[in-house]
Amino acid sequence: MERIDAYWRAANYLAVGQIYLLDNPLLTTPLTPEHIKPRLLGHWGTTPGLNFCFAHLNRIIRERDQDLIYIAGPGHGGPGAVAHAWLEGTYSERYPDISQDAAGMRRLFRQFSFPGGIPSHVAPETPGSIHEGGELGYSLAHAYGAAFDNPGLVVACVIGDGEAETGPLAASWHSNKLLDPTRDGAVLPILHLNGYKIANPTVLARIPTQTLVSLMEGYGYRPHLVGPDHQEMADTLDTVFDQITDFQQGRSDRLPMIILRTPKGWTGPGVVDGLPVEGTWRAHQVPLAKVRENPEHLAMLEEWMRSYRPEELFDDDGRPVASILETVPPGNRRMSANPHTNGGELLEPLRLPDFRDHAVEVKAPATQSTEPTKALGRLLRDVITANPRTFRLMGPDETASNRLSAVFEVTDRAWNAQLEPTDENLAPGGRVMEVLSEHLCQGWLEGYLLTGRHGLFNCYEAFIHIIDAMFNQHAKWLESSQKIPWRRPIASLTYLLSSHVWRQDHNGFSHQDPGFLDVVVNKKASVVRVYLPPDANTLLSVGDHCLRSRDYINVIVAGKQPVLDLFTMDEAIAHCTRGLGILPWASSDQGNDPDVVLACAGDVPTLETLAAAALLHEHLPDLRVRVINVVDLMRLQPPSEHPHGLPDAEYDTLFTTDKPVIFNFHGYPSLIHRLTYRRHGHANLHVRGYKEEGTTTTPFDMAMLNDIDRFHLVMDVIDRTPGLGATQAHLRQRMTDARLRARAHTREHGEDAPDIREWTWPDRFSS
Amino acid sequence: MERIDAYWRAANYLAVGQIYLLDNPLLTTPLTPEHIKPRLLGHWGTTPGLNFCFAHLNRIIRERDQDLIYIAGPGHGGPGAVAHAWLEGTYSERYPDISQDAAGMRRLFRQFSFPGGIPSHVAPETPGSIHEGGELGYSLAHAYGAAFDNPGLVVACVIGDGEAETGPLAASWHSNKLLDPTRDGAVLPILHLNGYKIANPTVLARIPTQTLVSLMEGYGYRPHLVGPDHQEMADTLDTVFDQITDFQQGRSDRLPMIILRTPKGWTGPGVVDGLPVEGTWRAHQVPLAKVRENPEHLAMLEEWMRSYRPEELFDDDGRPVASILETVPPGNRRMSANPHTNGGELLEPLRLPDFRDHAVEVKAPATQSTEPTKALGRLLRDVITANPRTFRLMGPDETASNRLSAVFEVTDRAWNAQLEPTDENLAPGGRVMEVLSEHLCQGWLEGYLLTGRHGLFNCYEAFIHIIDAMFNQHAKWLESSQKIPWRRPIASLTYLLSSHVWRQDHNGFSHQDPGFLDVVVNKKASVVRVYLPPDANTLLSVGDHCLRSRDYINVIVAGKQPVLDLFTMDEAIAHCTRGLGILPWASSDQGNDPDVVLACAGDVPTLETLAAAALLHEHLPDLRVRVINVVDLMRLQPPSEHPHGLPDAEYDTLFTTDKPVIFNFHGYPSLIHRLTYRRHGHANLHVRGYKEEGTTTTPFDMAMLNDIDRFHLVMDVIDRTPGLGATQAHLRQRMTDARLRARAHTREHGEDAPDIREWTWPDRFSS
Repeated sequence: MERIDAYWRAANYLAVGQIYLLDNPLLTTPLTPEHIKPRLLGHWGTTPGLNFCFAHLNRIIRERDQDLIYIAGPGHGGPGAVAHAWLEGTYSERYPDISQDAAGMRRLFRQFSFPGGIPSHVAPETPGSIHEGGELGYSLAHAYGAAFDNPGLVVACVIGDGEAETGPLAASWHSNKLLDPTRDGAVLPILHLNGYKIANPTVLARIPTQTLVSLMEGYGYRPHLVGPDHQEMADTLDTVFDQITDFQQGRSDRLPMIILRTPKGWTGPGVVDGLPVEGTWRAHQVPLAKVRENPEHLAMLEEWMRSYRPEELFDDDGRPVASILETVPPGNRRMSANPHTNGGELLEPLRLPDFRDHAVEVKAPATQSTEPTKALGRLLRDVITANPRTFRLMGPDETASNRLSAVFEVTDRAWNAQLEPTDENLAPGGRVMEVLSEHLCQGWLEGYLLTGRHGLFNCYEAFIHIIDAMFNQHAKWLESSQKIPWRRPIASLTYLLSSHVWRQDHNGFSHQDPGFLDVVVNKKASVVRVYLPPDANTLLSVGDHCLRSRDYINVIVAGKQPVLDLFTMDEAIAHCTRGLGILPWASSDQGNDPDVVLACAGDVPTLETLAAAALLHEHLPDLRVRVINVVDLMRLQPPSEHPHGLPDAEYDTLFTTDKPVIFNFHGYPSLIHRLTYRRHGHANLHVRGYKEEGTTTTPFDMAMLNDIDRFHLVMDVIDRTPGLGATQAHLRQRMTDARLRARAHTREHGEDAPDIREWTWPDRFSS
Repeated sequence: MERIDAYWRAANYLAVGQIYLLDNPLLTTPLTPEHIKPRLLGHWGTTPGLNFCFAHLNRIIRERDQDLIYIAGPGHGGPGAVAHAWLEGTYSERYPDISQDAAGMRRLFRQFSFPGGIPSHVAPETPGSIHEGGELGYSLAHAYGAAFDNPGLVVACVIGDGEAETGPLAASWHSNKLLDPTRDGAVLPILHLNGYKIANPTVLARIPTQTLVSLMEGYGYRPHLVGPDHQEMADTLDTVFDQITDFQQGRSDRLPMIILRTPKGWTGPGVVDGLPVEGTWRAHQVPLAKVRENPEHLAMLEEWMRSYRPEELFDDDGRPVASILETVPPGNRRMSANPHTNGGELLEPLRLPDFRDHAVEVKAPATQSTEPTKALGRLLRDVITANPRTFRLMGPDETASNRLSAVFEVTDRAWNAQLEPTDENLAPGGRVMEVLSEHLCQGWLEGYLLTGRHGLFNCYEAFIHIIDAMFNQHAKWLESSQKIPWRRPIASLTYLLSSHVWRQDHNGFSHQDPGFLDVVVNKKASVVRVYLPPDANTLLSVGDHCLRSRDYINVIVAGKQPVLDLFTMDEAIAHCTRGLGILPWASSDQGNDPDVVLACAGDVPTLETLAAAALLHEHLPDLRVRVINVVDLMRLQPPSEHPHGLPDAEYDTLFTTDKPVIFNFHGYPSLIHRLTYRRHGHANLHVRGYKEEGTTTTPFDMAMLNDIDRFHLVMDVIDRTPGLGATQAHLRQRMTDARLRARAHTREHGEDAPDIREWTWPDRFSS
């Protein structure tokens, strides 16, 4: 216990040093203002509690040879996490210039939250972390994600009482209903009540203890109360690790959890300038704020740091003394070095069945229909079969709705709660994870990927905005990780967005929002990829590509309703490899310069574009129309902006520099302008897309409401192609009339658009 | 009880009719396929349970003359909500063509989920609703928002067991800790366990009842279990309304809540095509799917509808019979007509103190600094004083951090949990609502505004993405409401985003995301407004404007750190009224044509732009530089795109059509391109902004990392102004060197940029 206390004091000392000191790390001389950083930044309040947990967990690891990783929900406790990695030697292994001696300690202190140094949070730079904890709410979902399919692993997850107020965290407690005691690892939640957030008490610290215990029992855990006492913590940890074994061996149906109550800013200054600090919200950041200017504060800092008795903790060279080093677990058992926290080290490529085996046979383009996601579901089924322990499919109760049901031929939904006779496809260990929480799906998948596994998240398009902020955080994690040599690449996070804006027959306006793409494209080109495959074979090709990729966030938008098959598998592969291309069979420019370009991205916009091309061919057979479909949206950007960017010369050859381009887009039109504004022909580009018009109605009515329909596209061509406006007023009027009739028909009969398969195509006309 | 049952049967009948029937609403003849809609859409599963609650609550309203509104968390139960409004007569009052007779019933059925008709969800079109329930998770937060400051009101909130799995809902239970029993109304949560989501069982329906009871007790409620039984429901409601009175009168410290367990699709078909439907997930949408094609299904539908004995419920003219109409509460007591659900009817304008009284005195521009949000805090303090019951300030524990602390001179944080002696500014009834959940802040504020009150949400900029999806839903609600004549305008939802991307001294990369603006601008111009006031006086002017506005979503991005005061109050008002304008004192074009335009939006970009202008003036005194600051971002769009859009002629006069414009922007640069791509000078526009580079560092280092710094702007001017590139290579090199020195200085000493107040300005130079 003494050694644990010494380790804890050492970690606390190193945390305070990081926040305050530029120099004199071992306090070998009395502190002077020159030793103090000019800007005091960091979060002390949560750190000593985090250090307390870490110190005690190390004993468990050593005594039980336990495979254990540690998630610090309060990421603001960054100085603590860094301190542990340094004490365990991992920091110096990852960053040799931060050696485990006085010189390294000085650099360790100096770099913290300093320009050009390391962030104040737990971050990708921090060895042993898969969780930043800057934006709060995701620690417990990350912990469960890490535990799935890791039967020997325990994930200790410290949850701050601030974080516990967030929605995602409040929902995460129920993750235990999807945990398989035998095939998954365990999660040990440690709810750390230090009582305060930035400036407020926390809710869970201010309800009666019995009420809090009821809450945890209601969430399905066995709660254990622990105060700020070494022996109590040690005894409780012994108990809970036994209870974890009981749970995993079927002797208990509940995981234990710990409610740890400590003062905020524990062991820090008690009273500063006459105001209580330790044990209040004033300890949240920097308890002594004027150390450089105020000699009294300086003296208090020195007293505070010396209270840890650094002379007992570090030798004259600044190395931790032997009794501290002996508390550190060996090698990969160190939480700061556990390979699960650098998932790329453990990552094995997916065994991928040949996606071409699932090809839809296409004898001629646009003559038959397939449900694209249904085809992808068959591929995913075989992926699951071939990778029974390393791939999971997440979805907020939408996997069947998104028509991926083929997966249920080989697996179930993970379910560890009560079963009823009428249930189908529910079982512990199922590969499909479904609760009605996009936050949990995202959080679990992040935790699963970050620990070296694979997965896919399927979601209704509009509601993926629920995890915009989580996407941002994961993208930033990847952006940072790519610059850290020792962070090994992990599997990409791939979204399949279906039930999209144009197919809201069942739902309506509130389910129509294609704007996630705009959020995605704000992130660095090195991590984001966006695909809009227009049919089943292109979706299969894109899906295979995404499942092979590393360190990206892939967004695939695809339909679940039947859409026209446009490409044979060979054509689909070629089209997806190019990312965009001309559809010769729908074009009438015969390889010559076109009069007008019809571009499209997304399944419904592509359908309407094809119908417009057919109408143009029928009514204006001499007009040279080029139809271009875009699958890989990033191809539209210049190569200077995105690695997928099409060279300007190729872009100009395809889209021309001077002809009108009518671009029919799946999402908000501005995104296409944004991607192409540097292109030569941009002034001639006219984009149609979703403009916030909609209700519960047919796709064709939706198209008309937003002017992306075939008739309106023909009108756009007439309006924008030189010469046509004057000569084709009659045709324009016919289109207007046709549109009104179609609208009235839909509204009278509730029926969708006429089937374009009956229409005349240029190549069929010429053959 | 019989009358309640009759009312319930009538509501169920009307719900089934809406889902299925085109004609023959009273089943006066046997059903034929022609009577059936061609596309069967809607959600039956949740509807009978919702109807059950509604029917029983009506008794309470009548017996107790209770002011009560009803929130249907499962918005998919739209046909139920519409049925009630029709039975209560409200529907016909709002939509006279949907009369309360057979002809009206036929139209009621036909319009439901039909092209050109009404959405399948509860929606703004639905009388009596403030909650759509399409995107799940927000019902309980909306309910609490409606209850705050409405002491006579009870908000009954049905929470689906699917919705209960979401994060926002899981967090919302704790809203009771901020409810004042005496000055606020009450919320009655009714957790409706029908057992299934779309295709899965629900978590809360599959845990032991005692565990569920523990959970609700842990959340701080008194749970009551109710089964599918009229008497049980009636008795329980009598009990819980007594308990609500006990709570409000201090005899109990807990609100009651109800756990209602009913079969999914209750009273619907039990078995269809050999598979169980009632009581399973198969009842979620349309239990009989092939009614037009399959005579057996058609017969089952007729049997199902006749099981409600419509002949007892409606007279020959289709009017509800007297015994049903007698169960309906009178006038505004009807839940479908309660004015709280059309908040604009109750809205009173805020009493607004003169914001000019809070003006910062500015003797000369850019000579002194003020913390803008601190000034706004004083205005908000006076708003709270003048409007003690109709204004609330929401923030996720960031009100003090965002420097709005002046409000605590006159009010507290709402808090109804335990108090400690060291606590400050916590009390029941406080006007400031703080928990660490952006979801709750947003949900409460929506509920508060929708019931006719006022408020403001202050938040760290990066983390406002947490409620992107909620913003989308509220914007869509407003977009729809604006088209509904009987929906009266409500107060705008105003965001104050601070602790923004450029000021992350304490935090870092994960706290840097200005992309909420991109999400906002996707929504209709009729509802969104974006302001970036660069100093304290402009923030006060913008704040006042936003607090007066109606039916908008206003986003204000403003700094909390000291920034240079640029405008006297009179100038600020003029500048904000114009939305953008030239800063003559920083410009050197003296009213002539400029050689280059430096535009800026946002406080840090404005500072760097001013410093660049000063550098240019020093080094290139003959260069005519025009400095333009943009406060109202929507002014950049053409008037065809946004009502605030600047006419092209005025835009051209300000920005020129042919001179280089270097635009230094607060957010992602693409947004400026997006807003201006139709402008004449767009090809000459070069935008600087955040490009995903950052860490915990100084604002000046942040500026340099993203190339928005003064030195880089000068380099941009040299590179883009004809003639300068060749002649000013030396100056360009000096800027490069200065930049490297500044960077090294920051990284060596951790200090920020030199103060630009010492610099030379054109007008000071000339005077």
